[in-house]
Amino acid sequence: MIIVGFDPGIATLGYGVIKTEKRKKPEMLDYGIVSTPKEENIAVRLAMIEKGVKQIIDKYKPDEIAIEELFFAKNVKTAIAVAHARGVVLLTCIKECGRIYEYTPLQIKQALTGYGRAEKKQIQAMVKMFLNLKAIPKPDDAADALAVALTHAQTNKLGGLFSI
Amino acid sequence: MIIVGFDPGIATLGYGVIKTEKRKKPEMLDYGIVSTPKEENIAVRLAMIEKGVKQIIDKYKPDEIAIEELFFAKNVKTAIAVAHARGVVLLTCIKECGRIYEYTPLQIKQALTGYGRAEKKQIQAMVKMFLNLKAIPKPDDAADALAVALTHAQTNKLGGLFSI
Repeated sequence: MIIVGFDPGIATLGYGVIKTEKRKKPEMLDYGIVSTPKEENIAVRLAMIEKGVKQIIDKYKPDEIAIEELFFAKNVKTAIAVAHARGVVLLTCIKECGRIYEYTPLQIKQALTGYGRAEKKQIQAMVKMFLNLKAIPKPDDAADALAVALTHAQTNKLGGLFSI
Repeated sequence: MIIVGFDPGIATLGYGVIKTEKRKKPEMLDYGIVSTPKEENIAVRLAMIEKGVKQIIDKYKPDEIAIEELFFAKNVKTAIAVAHARGVVLLTCIKECGRIYEYTPLQIKQALTGYGRAEKKQIQAMVKMFLNLKAIPKPDDAADALAVALTHAQTNKLGGLFSI
């Protein structure tokens, strides 16, 4: 089973691709970001995001997609911009894959660390460990996308319970 | 020149279509809403919005599209949901038409009434008058969409200054 995780953003959209098999640890296939230039207008940036998401789905043909839910406590203006991008990601995913799952930051923290108030660094350390990576994936958006993909794998017990 | 106006929303997206010609009053061609059921998940609703927006653009082949900017003072949660829809509308418009213009509620009020603090009722009355309609268009989302289309026509002086 191939799972793609997305961490939506308008300037930087993170993605992470993992493969799960029964009784095996999940395997990292790819991760990275789709970035859009600030100078462009929002419609053009959304079209770039759509194109990037499509390319990732075309390349990896995921069975399921996991997307981080919007956490909007900090800055309303930023949240609104991210929500524009997230709408486009959801649209593209439902058209190109059909099976989308959403996870809140709390669910991701709990799934990966067992603790809802875990710090970003802890999540990233767990991503590195679960996927047997040599280093924490950079940038943060890509690590976050792998985290949501792992959350989906764990929540659905697709890859079995992670065993370190 | 054909102008389509959109008032984005996740449950109800308003649209309004007007035709402008030099030295003539703008003419209303169509208005209405695209609505999506609350029971559906957001990705499905976004796909319905995309389909509706595409159909409107296919039917009227607008030269230019005007979209209302998000006013998010009231309720952050609602604004986030609307922003998801607005992202999809912007994406669809840039792909299908290319010429998109955004107007704030303040710009719309000023363009139609000359007064930035005009009430919704006043805007609607001006829409009715400028377009020679027998009644105020219903629902409000459709009237708002016609208002943003008229704002674009007036701001660009495409239809000349409105003369009552």
